[in-house]
Amino acid sequence: MKDILTYLKKEKGRFVEELCELLQIPSISTSEAHKPQMAQAASWVSRQLKKVGVKDVTVHKTAGHPIVTGHTPHVAGAPTVLVYGHYDVQPAEPLELWKTPPFEPTVLGSKLFARGSADDKGQFYIHLKVLEAFKQVRGGVPINVKVLIEGEEEIGSPSLVPFLRQHKKDLACDAILVSDTHMHGLKTPSITTSLRGLTCLEVKVRTASTDMHSGTYGGAIANANQVLAELLVQCKDPKTGKVKIPGFYDEVRKLTPAQRRGLKAIPHDDARYARSVGAREVFGERGFTSIERAGARPTFEVNGMWGGHIGEGIKTVLPAEAGAKISMRLVADQDPTVVAKRVKAHLLAIAPPHAKVSVRKLDNDGLPVMVAEDSPAMAVACEAVEKVFGVAPFLALEGGSIPIVADFKKVLGADPILLGFGLPDDNLHAPNEKFDLRMFDRGLATVAYFFELFGAQGRG
Amino acid sequence: MKDILTYLKKEKGRFVEELCELLQIPSISTSEAHKPQMAQAASWVSRQLKKVGVKDVTVHKTAGHPIVTGHTPHVAGAPTVLVYGHYDVQPAEPLELWKTPPFEPTVLGSKLFARGSADDKGQFYIHLKVLEAFKQVRGGVPINVKVLIEGEEEIGSPSLVPFLRQHKKDLACDAILVSDTHMHGLKTPSITTSLRGLTCLEVKVRTASTDMHSGTYGGAIANANQVLAELLVQCKDPKTGKVKIPGFYDEVRKLTPAQRRGLKAIPHDDARYARSVGAREVFGERGFTSIERAGARPTFEVNGMWGGHIGEGIKTVLPAEAGAKISMRLVADQDPTVVAKRVKAHLLAIAPPHAKVSVRKLDNDGLPVMVAEDSPAMAVACEAVEKVFGVAPFLALEGGSIPIVADFKKVLGADPILLGFGLPDDNLHAPNEKFDLRMFDRGLATVAYFFELFGAQGRG
Repeated sequence: MKDILTYLKKEKGRFVEELCELLQIPSISTSEAHKPQMAQAASWVSRQLKKVGVKDVTVHKTAGHPIVTGHTPHVAGAPTVLVYGHYDVQPAEPLELWKTPPFEPTVLGSKLFARGSADDKGQFYIHLKVLEAFKQVRGGVPINVKVLIEGEEEIGSPSLVPFLRQHKKDLACDAILVSDTHMHGLKTPSITTSLRGLTCLEVKVRTASTDMHSGTYGGAIANANQVLAELLVQCKDPKTGKVKIPGFYDEVRKLTPAQRRGLKAIPHDDARYARSVGAREVFGERGFTSIERAGARPTFEVNGMWGGHIGEGIKTVLPAEAGAKISMRLVADQDPTVVAKRVKAHLLAIAPPHAKVSVRKLDNDGLPVMVAEDSPAMAVACEAVEKVFGVAPFLALEGGSIPIVADFKKVLGADPILLGFGLPDDNLHAPNEKFDLRMFDRGLATVAYFFELFGAQGRG
Repeated sequence: MKDILTYLKKEKGRFVEELCELLQIPSISTSEAHKPQMAQAASWVSRQLKKVGVKDVTVHKTAGHPIVTGHTPHVAGAPTVLVYGHYDVQPAEPLELWKTPPFEPTVLGSKLFARGSADDKGQFYIHLKVLEAFKQVRGGVPINVKVLIEGEEEIGSPSLVPFLRQHKKDLACDAILVSDTHMHGLKTPSITTSLRGLTCLEVKVRTASTDMHSGTYGGAIANANQVLAELLVQCKDPKTGKVKIPGFYDEVRKLTPAQRRGLKAIPHDDARYARSVGAREVFGERGFTSIERAGARPTFEVNGMWGGHIGEGIKTVLPAEAGAKISMRLVADQDPTVVAKRVKAHLLAIAPPHAKVSVRKLDNDGLPVMVAEDSPAMAVACEAVEKVFGVAPFLALEGGSIPIVADFKKVLGADPILLGFGLPDDNLHAPNEKFDLRMFDRGLATVAYFFELFGAQGRG
């Protein structure tokens, strides 16, 4: 492997420069206005794939944003890995909190700041550069690699599931490599074995047909902001952090005592964890540790909330409408549809008679995922990590959602390997997202080992 | 009076056209960006004053927006009335809810739609047109009229109080006529005898230094939106509508049984009242009628509330910051400073350990006002109303605040007469503000009678 590792080391500067080209493209999938940038990013990916020796590179049109696919030249007898990534990113707002512009990638010390640097442009790019190294140094990678890069991960991958079904045969594989998660730390590598699911709702409260003068009507007509606050407090207990929606926890798989012991073994300090995000202290569901709360327990979070006058200055209005965007992270064996239905029913049931409450389900459900911890691909992944980091990875729970992973398993019947190279403080979905270039380096080496070791296994 | 009334009737069309010029100027006092429009509106007012025979018209520079003053030629032995109005308006947002553009005045049937049409451009304009009528028809008004039009009413009149103190002698008067309120109905005239006071706060909740990924941290770090909702519910009881801030009601003057009987005599129907603003039903402090709640009881209203992702699409963020703008309407004998202090102390006391709560007091306090019901000016005002409307006005409580009215009384020592010509459904501070032109006509006639009758009294 020395040849490959030497190449990766030598070319690293150019790799980062090339990555910055992609990071400059504001490929925000949720925004209609950014459709041209989505096409631009897909086209950049397809050019890169050709450059690193991927064949039959195709940019597939979809109802939403394009999907890019391709595969390496066939290696007889070797197993097949599908590598997956997404070129779309979250919106960058609030812009004023970014220390460097989100779409002007900036390296500060070992950190590369840009929207999408860790989620997921910088990560799937690792796979491509490892393919390049094998091609340049050895003429090819010793394994069959299929590539699938989509542009709708941040909006729930609506086009990918039909695409998977349609291209099921072309995408057949022994394992699916996904680098879209993080490790516990630079020196404490981890592989993710579970992902939370997701379901989202938008709630609107209306107390009158139009905003009113808070002097004339204040005290006699209900305030939509106040009603919304009341609804939210009736969904989550301020003291215990428990979600109060009837049936919410019904299908939650209980952690076994062995699992809880395993999670307790992960190095973790609540005070340091809180400090790392600038919080005074942790807060969550009573009776669980922070690691359990963020990985093995479902949540109810108000992602956005608005009502009345939120602009400059004073406007003593009595607001007629208020709204909230709410997401629930789910764990096995919760079903997004069932949970969303229960939350909606609860919100409608607790609506006071003086308000009209409406609930709209958003189309970005994701099933929670539990990955088999004993597959051949997982064994290879663990070995690759240990070779690069010097210690064996521990198996971690990821609180985030990559809804498509559940679909991969279901449609393609192969095991997903969640081998991500982010770090917990990467500021995903937040201002000042960054990717640690030391993890980029280790990611390159780890994926190189993974391809090499998995290839050496022969068809599993 | 027939001569004056005939003139007013004849010129009405032109009056409305001229008023529309002023309504086209977006004189939004709370917005820094609108400073030029504020100067433009002040200059329009000064030109109008000269046109209707006001002498010594002066546009006074202030630390904020200009104040325009002037007076009619001296009439020996006649009493002096100070007429007050404001040329500034509230912001027009949310713009998408306006059926006609807020600064393109539009007459539909008897209604003139425009931001500021009723509050207060259309109302103080009545005073000016009555002066014009007396000047054109009789060569002058039979009373001493001093005019004071300011541009900071909607932001708490910060420049006017020092101005009053400085010009106390020039502004000396027997009564102050303020047309900035509404009557109960087109056929049920009323004169306002109390105004609520006001104090405003901005609350911010911070749970982390930056927005977080709701997957990675959701469940383990507190959500600023949720904490804000919890604080708001701890300020007002969802069931009883009672404000839960310790000491909040301590200085509230209790309504006497006679006052409550008087208020019950006002024609009012809760169902119709709720329908008039598109509400399902009324809601307010338990144990009080809607009229009492909106006029004689203090309030706690969340005028604006925001946190996390409030833009287009989905962003499954765990918000680090949320905020709310809160206003309290106060009644005699509450003191804005004292109430604000108690609310702030309460919010800080209930802040959970996992959040940083900060409270900023805004500079727009207003004292509640109770007007003497037995002054000579009030007797004249009642007589003028009865002559025009055919029935005696009842004495009403106004829920809104005109903070300067308390200062007028305090600094100038004269009684304010709150003779407003709005209607309850004028959509003040809200989209589709309108002024009913039938009330405009009656206002012109009523103010004409007021000047005539008060002048006939001789110096009081």
